[in-house]
Amino acid sequence: MFRRASDLIDSGRESPEQGTEQMPKFTRNRAKKVGLSPGTLAHAEEVKTEPTRVSLMAYDETTCQERELAGVQDAFPLKGGSTVTWIDIDGLRSISTIEALGEHFGFHPLVLEDVVTTGQRPKMEDHENHLYVVLRMVRCKGSTGEIDDEQLSLFLGPDWVVSIQEREGDVFDPVRERIRSGKGRIRKMGAGYLAYALIDAVVDHYFVVLERLGDRVDALAERLVTEPGPEALRELQTLRHELLFLRKWVWPLRDVISRLERSDSPLFSDPTRIYLRDVYDHAIQVMDTVETYRDMVSGMFEIYLSSLSNRMNEIMKVLTIITTVFIPLSFVAGLYGMNFQYMPEIAWRYGYFAILGLMAVMAGGMVLYFKRKRWM
Amino acid sequence: MFRRASDLIDSGRESPEQGTEQMPKFTRNRAKKVGLSPGTLAHAEEVKTEPTRVSLMAYDETTCQERELAGVQDAFPLKGGSTVTWIDIDGLRSISTIEALGEHFGFHPLVLEDVVTTGQRPKMEDHENHLYVVLRMVRCKGSTGEIDDEQLSLFLGPDWVVSIQEREGDVFDPVRERIRSGKGRIRKMGAGYLAYALIDAVVDHYFVVLERLGDRVDALAERLVTEPGPEALRELQTLRHELLFLRKWVWPLRDVISRLERSDSPLFSDPTRIYLRDVYDHAIQVMDTVETYRDMVSGMFEIYLSSLSNRMNEIMKVLTIITTVFIPLSFVAGLYGMNFQYMPEIAWRYGYFAILGLMAVMAGGMVLYFKRKRWM
Amino acid sequence: MFRRASDLIDSGRESPEQGTEQMPKFTRNRAKKVGLSPGTLAHAEEVKTEPTRVSLMAYDETTCQERELAGVQDAFPLKGGSTVTWIDIDGLRSISTIEALGEHFGFHPLVLEDVVTTGQRPKMEDHENHLYVVLRMVRCKGSTGEIDDEQLSLFLGPDWVVSIQEREGDVFDPVRERIRSGKGRIRKMGAGYLAYALIDAVVDHYFVVLERLGDRVDALAERLVTEPGPEALRELQTLRHELLFLRKWVWPLRDVISRLERSDSPLFSDPTRIYLRDVYDHAIQVMDTVETYRDMVSGMFEIYLSSLSNRMNEIMKVLTIITTVFIPLSFVAGLYGMNFQYMPEIAWRYGYFAILGLMAVMAGGMVLYFKRKRWM
Amino acid sequence: MFRRASDLIDSGRESPEQGTEQMPKFTRNRAKKVGLSPGTLAHAEEVKTEPTRVSLMAYDETTCQERELAGVQDAFPLKGGSTVTWIDIDGLRSISTIEALGEHFGFHPLVLEDVVTTGQRPKMEDHENHLYVVLRMVRCKGSTGEIDDEQLSLFLGPDWVVSIQEREGDVFDPVRERIRSGKGRIRKMGAGYLAYALIDAVVDHYFVVLERLGDRVDALAERLVTEPGPEALRELQTLRHELLFLRKWVWPLRDVISRLERSDSPLFSDPTRIYLRDVYDHAIQVMDTVETYRDMVSGMFEIYLSSLSNRMNEIMKVLTIITTVFIPLSFVAGLYGMNFQYMPEIAWRYGYFAILGLMAVMAGGMVLYFKRKRWM
Amino acid sequence: MFRRASDLIDSGRESPEQGTEQMPKFTRNRAKKVGLSPGTLAHAEEVKTEPTRVSLMAYDETTCQERELAGVQDAFPLKGGSTVTWIDIDGLRSISTIEALGEHFGFHPLVLEDVVTTGQRPKMEDHENHLYVVLRMVRCKGSTGEIDDEQLSLFLGPDWVVSIQEREGDVFDPVRERIRSGKGRIRKMGAGYLAYALIDAVVDHYFVVLERLGDRVDALAERLVTEPGPEALRELQTLRHELLFLRKWVWPLRDVISRLERSDSPLFSDPTRIYLRDVYDHAIQVMDTVETYRDMVSGMFEIYLSSLSNRMNEIMKVLTIITTVFIPLSFVAGLYGMNFQYMPEIAWRYGYFAILGLMAVMAGGMVLYFKRKRWM
Repeated sequence: MFRRASDLIDSGRESPEQGTEQMPKFTRNRAKKVGLSPGTLAHAEEVKTEPTRVSLMAYDETTCQERELAGVQDAFPLKGGSTVTWIDIDGLRSISTIEALGEHFGFHPLVLEDVVTTGQRPKMEDHENHLYVVLRMVRCKGSTGEIDDEQLSLFLGPDWVVSIQEREGDVFDPVRERIRSGKGRIRKMGAGYLAYALIDAVVDHYFVVLERLGDRVDALAERLVTEPGPEALRELQTLRHELLFLRKWVWPLRDVISRLERSDSPLFSDPTRIYLRDVYDHAIQVMDTVETYRDMVSGMFEIYLSSLSNRMNEIMKVLTIITTVFIPLSFVAGLYGMNFQYMPEIAWRYGYFAILGLMAVMAGGMVLYFKRKRWM
Repeated sequence: MFRRASDLIDSGRESPEQGTEQMPKFTRNRAKKVGLSPGTLAHAEEVKTEPTRVSLMAYDETTCQERELAGVQDAFPLKGGSTVTWIDIDGLRSISTIEALGEHFGFHPLVLEDVVTTGQRPKMEDHENHLYVVLRMVRCKGSTGEIDDEQLSLFLGPDWVVSIQEREGDVFDPVRERIRSGKGRIRKMGAGYLAYALIDAVVDHYFVVLERLGDRVDALAERLVTEPGPEALRELQTLRHELLFLRKWVWPLRDVISRLERSDSPLFSDPTRIYLRDVYDHAIQVMDTVETYRDMVSGMFEIYLSSLSNRMNEIMKVLTIITTVFIPLSFVAGLYGMNFQYMPEIAWRYGYFAILGLMAVMAGGMVLYFKRKRWM
Repeated sequence: MFRRASDLIDSGRESPEQGTEQMPKFTRNRAKKVGLSPGTLAHAEEVKTEPTRVSLMAYDETTCQERELAGVQDAFPLKGGSTVTWIDIDGLRSISTIEALGEHFGFHPLVLEDVVTTGQRPKMEDHENHLYVVLRMVRCKGSTGEIDDEQLSLFLGPDWVVSIQEREGDVFDPVRERIRSGKGRIRKMGAGYLAYALIDAVVDHYFVVLERLGDRVDALAERLVTEPGPEALRELQTLRHELLFLRKWVWPLRDVISRLERSDSPLFSDPTRIYLRDVYDHAIQVMDTVETYRDMVSGMFEIYLSSLSNRMNEIMKVLTIITTVFIPLSFVAGLYGMNFQYMPEIAWRYGYFAILGLMAVMAGGMVLYFKRKRWM
Repeated sequence: MFRRASDLIDSGRESPEQGTEQMPKFTRNRAKKVGLSPGTLAHAEEVKTEPTRVSLMAYDETTCQERELAGVQDAFPLKGGSTVTWIDIDGLRSISTIEALGEHFGFHPLVLEDVVTTGQRPKMEDHENHLYVVLRMVRCKGSTGEIDDEQLSLFLGPDWVVSIQEREGDVFDPVRERIRSGKGRIRKMGAGYLAYALIDAVVDHYFVVLERLGDRVDALAERLVTEPGPEALRELQTLRHELLFLRKWVWPLRDVISRLERSDSPLFSDPTRIYLRDVYDHAIQVMDTVETYRDMVSGMFEIYLSSLSNRMNEIMKVLTIITTVFIPLSFVAGLYGMNFQYMPEIAWRYGYFAILGLMAVMAGGMVLYFKRKRWM
Repeated sequence: MFRRASDLIDSGRESPEQGTEQMPKFTRNRAKKVGLSPGTLAHAEEVKTEPTRVSLMAYDETTCQERELAGVQDAFPLKGGSTVTWIDIDGLRSISTIEALGEHFGFHPLVLEDVVTTGQRPKMEDHENHLYVVLRMVRCKGSTGEIDDEQLSLFLGPDWVVSIQEREGDVFDPVRERIRSGKGRIRKMGAGYLAYALIDAVVDHYFVVLERLGDRVDALAERLVTEPGPEALRELQTLRHELLFLRKWVWPLRDVISRLERSDSPLFSDPTRIYLRDVYDHAIQVMDTVETYRDMVSGMFEIYLSSLSNRMNEIMKVLTIITTVFIPLSFVAGLYGMNFQYMPEIAWRYGYFAILGLMAVMAGGMVLYFKRKRWM
């Protein structure tokens, strides 16, 4: 994936070959939305009828139910009791879903705007009765190791969690599996732990992505030495951009988790806070790794440049050796090709062979000279 | 737009082709004004009679009036009651307007000096009964994507806002539209919200500018690979300077908004503060983007340099191949052009063809050698 | 040791030539473990039967006993009284050992997970009744000066210390010797001093490693001038990576020790705290040295590049001199090889010798010119 | 002005062509003074009889007197009453003047030492009954735009200001003019405002200097593209050094003014503090500009380097084209210059013209090839 | 002095040509001492019998006695009364001296270890009844301007100062002279002032060293332009390393003095504290200068590189001009050296001269072309 500069403003405006059909069309184009009243959820003209996918999990220590819902409104009656309810929404196309959600839970209009405006910086906001967390979810796509990123909005209330993603497909399957199986702590602890588990899953996927990147960094380091060229340079540039983007997401991520851990919100119990500290350590590790990769990659350019210089020196040596050996020989040959009427050597019986010998000596001397200079 | 170093001192001293006729002539040239008493509003000799444009909007939840005024004094009687009054002044030419304004509202002479001295760093000052905010307003100009910037001074009082700009034409039309239409929150909330809306409009336009810059960064990245040359280098330099300038404006901008948000001024109500936090997030995003562009652009120079090196290698290879193939051949030809009387090969029946064959073998060998070295 | 980028994610996934047989197989591969419940100790399928080595030292001012144990459970009855107990575990293969340990001492599951997940960032956690410290232990391996690093987990309780290492072989032999001999302070002071002594041993080994690195830096500085080439460049790259890794470990190390010193934990007595300050000074010195090496090594690349440039200039000079001397001579020879019927010089008696003389003058003039330009 | 590294230690040790005769000879050479007791005012052997210039201004709201004094002692009786007294001393040669001043006002010996030791870092010290401020005063000298800098010591007491400069000629004439004319605030406000006005004059002159520098930066940017060469490189180096020096003075300057503004000294009234905030804004702007220039100039080196590379490529292309076109042609000519007895083409009637045609085709092919490669 | 990387670990392990005979042999080699109990003073096997030099000065306002002592024990009875006692120890060879000192004054074993372990980072420790300060003392050695550095340990008690140096010869002679002469403040003020005076002497010598370095920086700047080459490069590298080392010592030095000034230790009286502030200003100035030198030197590499590039361009131009002028001429000559039987020009009466004329025109055209391109 060649990360372009224009990706920074509006991640929704992707190039056609990156699958625009799955792309929600009403994603606010930051630059186009200029002038709208803040807190307005922009309706795109081309809203498709295809519905946004809403799924729900509700569980307590003993029971667990899981449903695919037609609309988000169906979820509200199911919420409550002693259970923890997790509403997961894939796709931002249906703006009415987001609005219904906001109305039911009392989300601030600006928050809803952030939800549908992809390209947010990871952040955490402590609202009166819920927390709002924006993260960036990364995954490796296909065989090329391209990084696929999307915005994840998490809302955490006393006994519910709402997660909103840009696209279907996420990194939460292991969490779902753990809830279903009822093993581990997850069913025993509240909504705060669920939010932690989702954040942990997001952070863990950074390691997967970093591992792939690490392999590419190693491969590139090798390649720059063995076959430096424009392709290697392009890969270097791509890697550098990807690391730039990763860094842009990871620095605030660390901040978000740190603020979650230290917030005095009652939504996180003390045992859960210890788990948040663990995620925090992981986020630091991710950041460290990104920075180390950046250092490595930035050093690689110098390797490339000196590789080119080395190669140039090689070429120049060949040129110089050939030129230096043959030009004097040619001169000698030219000398005896002159048509002067009186040239004593010409008439000698073994003049020709003497000259051939002289030439061999000259060439041999040159070769010796270059050997001593280590050019050959 | 090629940003020159001298632009930094006095943004009013622009080059002729950038439309000096619209440029207010009494803009204080920081360097020329040296020696004047501080707080003196410099009168330029060439003050034109053409009046500064003053317009007024006064609204409350139910009514909204909008007027073009002959002078700023006409605005003062209209102010007051339960309405919010917004006085917008375009152009700094009429120094008496600024002075009348300062007298009426009780602005400090140094503040007035800042208003007419363009090239201020964005800042926020909390005066007794009003806030003074300096921002830099950017827009894209014409088809080339040049950045047009001007200084915006904002004064916020209990029920009034005064905005002073360098030139006609601004980024506030959407705000005016929202006031006129009466939709959204703007008519219901006070002067603080209006100030927020204006700042938001300014920050939003940074995204427009950044999007254009992003496109140019991408185009340049492409161009440096496909046709590296002096023009690409000049564009690179221009982009770098523009990003340098943007950064110079955006860093203090973030600071200004953060101080507005955290100030304990009663001029901002609590709901408005939430909106300020939102603008703050946007300002951070702008800053992030500028920094990322800078990283990208700084990496591009290396791409360019290695592109040049690559090209040099290509040239050298051609030179070396040609030289290396033909110089030995020429030597052989020269050898048999010698005029020795006794050269046995000369007299051979097929000597000529034998030599031609030898030359073909030599050339072929060289070519093979270069193929194996991947030079061809 | 050529440090690869992929080492950063999972230090357990080492290349075969680095002795994978000693490598604990269940070391959590951070990326593979994605999806497991946090606090789960991952069981690798290939757990070998070969037991983890557990040894125990228990001492007070007068007595000292030392034992090799079959399992960690054997250690628990021996603990207690007025003695200090040090349980040292080599190898992470036996997950049941870690679990038994955790159960007995009441370690948090996340802490146990950190113990078996190598690649942790150095850190210090203050749990209710014990401290948990993660450090990275470095040693020089064999004759090449490769850096061998492993994770060390230290637990400090009121009268016990538990140390867990990745592999057999450590830097603690001098500490053991001091305990056995009963000389010095170590037998008189409590578990806190033992923990200090272990940390001090770890930090001291950084100096050994840095001394080796310093020798390599000096050798490289010499080599880059005397024989610049791809191998020197590769060594430069290796050194740079190793310093990058060292830095990654040393910065948090300093932090850990500083937090230990300033913590209000009763586990460290005031006299011991003075010793911690001393280790802190050493950690700063290590950090300083790493940074200075990094500055030196980063400067070396420039030396290398200019060395290449210098060499290129040398080559070009030779080429230019040869070409410039012989090409005009060859031209003159070619001139008199022309077959015009009327060429007066040809028929002169001493024409040939006159031309030879002219050529000698031309060549001499060129040589003088180059001498004056200091090219020869 | 080519700023030398040795200027940093002792600005008094200037090169002869910079007018040493005006240079006070007893300026402490920091390095030579080593070993003297601190607080000792060094007497240079070569103290000239030419007196230091002392002038005095004393004013209140209604009166203003101005005098040239024979010695500083003459000033003391004139001080006092309700007037503000400003003693301005040009030249540090007369050490007794400084000592008399110190004795009268009770300055600390270390402070007096700082006064005569030029090359101080800008700083502010709050002594019991007066403030001591060191600034660096810059001016543009002559037509070349050289920066002339000198140390300015300011003492501020309840109703007096003492300013001590290295040389005659300063940036204070506008302030004197304002005092004389009695216009503006200066006559109505106390000594604090006078001190502010002097500092403001100093900071304002930085803008003049920066404007000149900006013009030179722009001119250099142009020149590096149009005629890159050693002179442009030298100018680049000079600019870089000058910016380095400016930066060294401006950073602490900002600090000094910030500390003045925030100090709780009663010597500054509240209205004056607002003016100090204004100077602070200016100092920040100066700093910003210096940093931006530094960024610009540092980018210019890369422009220069790539300009050289471009030029090299141009040269190489010419060489390669000529060589590649003519070497094969020469080979063909050499071929038919061979003396074999049996060469069928030789005897052909139109052989010569056929070969000439062949050569034309070869040359044409080469030219086409280079055109397609865009080398021509 | 070429600063090697390995100097960083153990400054006692110097190369033979730097006079190891004066070098104390038991200086702890940080890396070799690994494993010793902390606070152990390492005895080297090769302790020489030559005694460490101990000298004593005891003075009050009226009396001053000065003695060379056989051993440090002789000093203790002389201490006391109302006098200030200064014990100065040169050389670390006699470990028993250090131990006796430590026992008498009650120094902590770790402190004694720091005293004999050269290569400490400058630091300040506030012990119960004394302060311990480590500084690095620099001097210029001989005519080459090599920097000679050694560790200085200072102990300050209520009425005594102990200074311990690595070698004989120090920067304290001016202080001794001031004590002997009884002029200035030094005899009137207590031990704190003496400690200040010693630190001041150390800091002042940094200026001497910096002045020498400044001269070398200037000389190098000149040399890199006039005769760039490997020696200039090596000097550049040496300077860079020396500045790296200086910086490593100066940054913590500033810190040490700042902490001394702000410490609430009763060992410094308030008047002395003012003097410490003065030294602090000097330390800042030293730091500033080192940083500025570093900036200058780092810019020089670019100058060197572009100097090389310039030179390469010069060489290439010569090569290209010669080649371009003569190769076409040679081709023409080769043309008429062909042996075709029918070549009309050959038979012309003035063919030869016509061709010579043609060649002259070709050569002249080329020269004109190069002149226009400014290559000649």
